Amino acid sequence: MPASRPLPQFDDVLDAAARIAPHAQVTPLLRADALDAATGARLVFKAEGLQRGGAFKFRGACNAVSCLSDAEAARGVVTHSSGNHGSALALAARLRAIPCHVVVPEGASPAKLALIAAQGAVLHRCEATIAAREAMCAQVQRATGATLVHPYADPRVIAGQGTATLELLAATPGLDAVVVPVGGGGLAAGAAIVVDGCAPGTSLVLAEPAGAADTLHALRTGSRDDAFVPDTICDGLRASLGEPNFRILRQHGAQVLAVDDADTIAAMRLLLAQLRLLVEPSSAIALAAVLGDRARFAGKRVGIVLTGGNVDPSALPWSAP
Amino acid sequence: MPASRPLPQFDDVLDAAARIAPHAQVTPLLRADALDAATGARLVFKAEGLQRGGAFKFRGACNAVSCLSDAEAARGVVTHSSGNHGSALALAARLRAIPCHVVVPEGASPAKLALIAAQGAVLHRCEATIAAREAMCAQVQRATGATLVHPYADPRVIAGQGTATLELLAATPGLDAVVVPVGGGGLAAGAAIVVDGCAPGTSLVLAEPAGAADTLHALRTGSRDDAFVPDTICDGLRASLGEPNFRILRQHGAQVLAVDDADTIAAMRLLLAQLRLLVEPSSAIALAAVLGDRARFAGKRVGIVLTGGNVDPSALPWSAP
Repeated sequence: MPASRPLPQFDDVLDAAARIAPHAQVTPLLRADALDAATGARLVFKAEGLQRGGAFKFRGACNAVSCLSDAEAARGVVTHSSGNHGSALALAARLRAIPCHVVVPEGASPAKLALIAAQGAVLHRCEATIAAREAMCAQVQRATGATLVHPYADPRVIAGQGTATLELLAATPGLDAVVVPVGGGGLAAGAAIVVDGCAPGTSLVLAEPAGAADTLHALRTGSRDDAFVPDTICDGLRASLGEPNFRILRQHGAQVLAVDDADTIAAMRLLLAQLRLLVEPSSAIALAAVLGDRARFAGKRVGIVLTGGNVDPSALPWSAP
Repeated sequence: MPASRPLPQFDDVLDAAARIAPHAQVTPLLRADALDAATGARLVFKAEGLQRGGAFKFRGACNAVSCLSDAEAARGVVTHSSGNHGSALALAARLRAIPCHVVVPEGASPAKLALIAAQGAVLHRCEATIAAREAMCAQVQRATGATLVHPYADPRVIAGQGTATLELLAATPGLDAVVVPVGGGGLAAGAAIVVDGCAPGTSLVLAEPAGAADTLHALRTGSRDDAFVPDTICDGLRASLGEPNFRILRQHGAQVLAVDDADTIAAMRLLLAQLRLLVEPSSAIALAAVLGDRARFAGKRVGIVLTGGNVDPSALPWSAP
């Protein structure tokens, strides 16, 4: 996407909310006294793992698919993602009964590919490099006329992801802080737009794996580094921050907390025990960030977006081998 | 409780709903396309594991405590339960700032006792027989003047548990069936009262462990057997059906499905994978009942009460030893 493309605005999030309303869940807000006690804060969790497809990603994908004209829609959509965005886009396309192409790198988890295929999407395999998957996407676009729906840099996706934070803030006015994970920055940029638009007194805190802290680096230095090699259990947060996402977060002045994987796994276990909710490491990281900075959050009302729950219960990271 | 004590009525459930509203959560309703596909039915889950204290038990305990006069309340409450009812009563008592005594049998899980003690209740240990715990309860009552709040036979408890089904039916009109687990029968009797009171076209189906199927037997033969020895992983469903509970369920004509533990464990795993919710075996049994009788539920709109989530994530029944 060219850098000159206009950034999504608060009104785009409101439009997205109306557009996805017939399809998406308004996910529940959960609380647990024990987690308030553990953090010293008053926490409310937005349970996006209970969203259709098991992650907030359906919001952005559904908004993007809903924005297409009938002529565009008939030619289908294409993306490159072997994770939650791939299956979310496949689900959104299936609901509109249009073709969906998903470019997946060699080595992607067979379970995730099965999820995408189960939604009726066509899989296109390629080498596990950024160049290879962009080339394959371009090839599919040329061959089919499908519209590219980028996992996090697409403005329709950013606006759609913003609806998660919109629902959170609408249902719990007066939050002191909202904490969301950051990977490519779709959810984070959407959250920044919404906070600016309707809750400027709320601070936005991004939780990022210490082993993939390119957003922290980019906001500190003022320039993105998309050549870094991520090393984290948070497979949903390995992508490097998108260009429009960077501009939105920089303009907003978002703060980033880097979190070690061990703390993320401990938070995941705590959420399962105390909130009875299974979440991915990429989601649990937001609670880990709050647990890791008690002084910042003590006594505050904090909203946490638990982004998704697509994790194999047989392979929890603390199970005996 | 004497058999002549009047049975709770629908109005008692409505009163209970108003009474507990300032304290209890209206728990969320969850759906998952994959579970609809697995059962051939349209399922909606009432997630009582997200209730305060982690189980529906808080509803009945809170209603019972709220019913007490100030003079009664000052003398406290007492019960015998080492499980969810014990900690729910302790929580309800703490919220009203009154004493709570919990009689616990030798051999009860230290983790569960810690939960009860953490709510500020006084623990009274006794031998692991029904006679011993009733004697100890009577002794505490004599010594303190505390009011006994029986885990499932108390009419205030039954009315309180009915509010879970009331919320479910109010939020999803037109259900063909409601499925709830049955142990002592507090939740089940409450559900029967509510179905009779506001949704007579909805059938009530009770899920009971095959290794503790005294309710199935009682409703078939017309007489209770409280001398049976339960053998099931569903530790919340080992109690024998209470006397008023039996009368209510018999009058209603509830149906019972017996479920093997292996099927319950499979359903527990499915709920964790597809609904991202950790539930106790005693809760998962309700989904197992639906999975085990596809013909009965195919094409139907079915509400399932997932009663609680108090289970140790480190000791899931399918983990490697």
